[in-house]
Amino acid sequence: MNEHLPKPLRELADAFALLPSIGKKSAVRLAMHVFESSPDEAQRFSKLLTEIHSSLRRCTQCFNVSEDERCPICSDSRREHSLLCVVEQPLDVFSIEQSGQYRGLYHVLGGVLSPADGIGPSDIRLEELAGRVLNGSFSEVILAMNPSMEGEATANYLNRLLKPSGVKITRLARGIPSGGLLEYTDEHTLGSAFEGRTIISP
Amino acid sequence: MNEHLPKPLRELADAFALLPSIGKKSAVRLAMHVFESSPDEAQRFSKLLTEIHSSLRRCTQCFNVSEDERCPICSDSRREHSLLCVVEQPLDVFSIEQSGQYRGLYHVLGGVLSPADGIGPSDIRLEELAGRVLNGSFSEVILAMNPSMEGEATANYLNRLLKPSGVKITRLARGIPSGGLLEYTDEHTLGSAFEGRTIISP
Repeated sequence: MNEHLPKPLRELADAFALLPSIGKKSAVRLAMHVFESSPDEAQRFSKLLTEIHSSLRRCTQCFNVSEDERCPICSDSRREHSLLCVVEQPLDVFSIEQSGQYRGLYHVLGGVLSPADGIGPSDIRLEELAGRVLNGSFSEVILAMNPSMEGEATANYLNRLLKPSGVKITRLARGIPSGGLLEYTDEHTLGSAFEGRTIISP
Repeated sequence: MNEHLPKPLRELADAFALLPSIGKKSAVRLAMHVFESSPDEAQRFSKLLTEIHSSLRRCTQCFNVSEDERCPICSDSRREHSLLCVVEQPLDVFSIEQSGQYRGLYHVLGGVLSPADGIGPSDIRLEELAGRVLNGSFSEVILAMNPSMEGEATANYLNRLLKPSGVKITRLARGIPSGGLLEYTDEHTLGSAFEGRTIISP
């Protein structure tokens, strides 16, 4: 129905439709909602969009999203700096923090190995991880990728990559249902997953 | 999990969460997506939001959204200016236009009567409609509100309101939707389908 929409509405709807999991009909409804809300609200929304790339960056150590060069977790001396938890994406960090079950540091890969999607070792932050682990003083690296095919493959790859460090490598217990997403896991399940993590090397 | 998010991400997520049918988790994911997309895309989105209230207005005749004072439908001399279709909201106009089944004018009420939500006759564009119908030269007014309780009540109210004009007032047929299954059709719809049955022979 978009060809019947006035141009400004159509363009705004198209912008919404670029977002994940927003269909074309929903996008039109969202654009319409913005027009029917107060201009102040739209201006505020617009300002936040403008500023997101200047106010937010990636932590230079763990690559989580951060307001500063070093994120609050990496800079927190009360955390256990000998523990490193490797996750796929920033939202996983926030889910784990929410569970309150972990007090170490993180490494955000920014994806998983997925040959089918053309994502190889150089497309995610594996080299940076190897650097941190091989040159660092970690006592344990916890692999916390999603229990998907790609997550498993990435865990196996990481296990081989990090073996030379001699650091204990663990992975989260299969408390998380197969095919589920870490991001959606409730805090109790996440807690058991941390508690039941198993040693895979050495 | 929002208390663990950096402020710019949390604020953008909160802005997304103000939109209809976007939950808190989805809102965080959308905000994260924007951060992970190109700054250019975010700037474009932001600009469209900024401009929507200045580039879009309501047609002064039918109250549909429009770029100009008078919308393209109202200004189109090839349309049947003796037919008026009354709808709840602009998206209904676009759906009807999409169908290509109607070539008259519109009147957008901007809602329906809903005492439970505190929406009375002065909150929707009834007076403007009465003005158009009583002072105009329409041969037919088609009531095209949704077949909900509130839509029905609004249609009844409008029928009384417009009666003095002497103009023919109709409402959209109720029946089994195209492609629908009789066995899943509710009793009210089936009732209307029987009531409104049409002769096909002789």
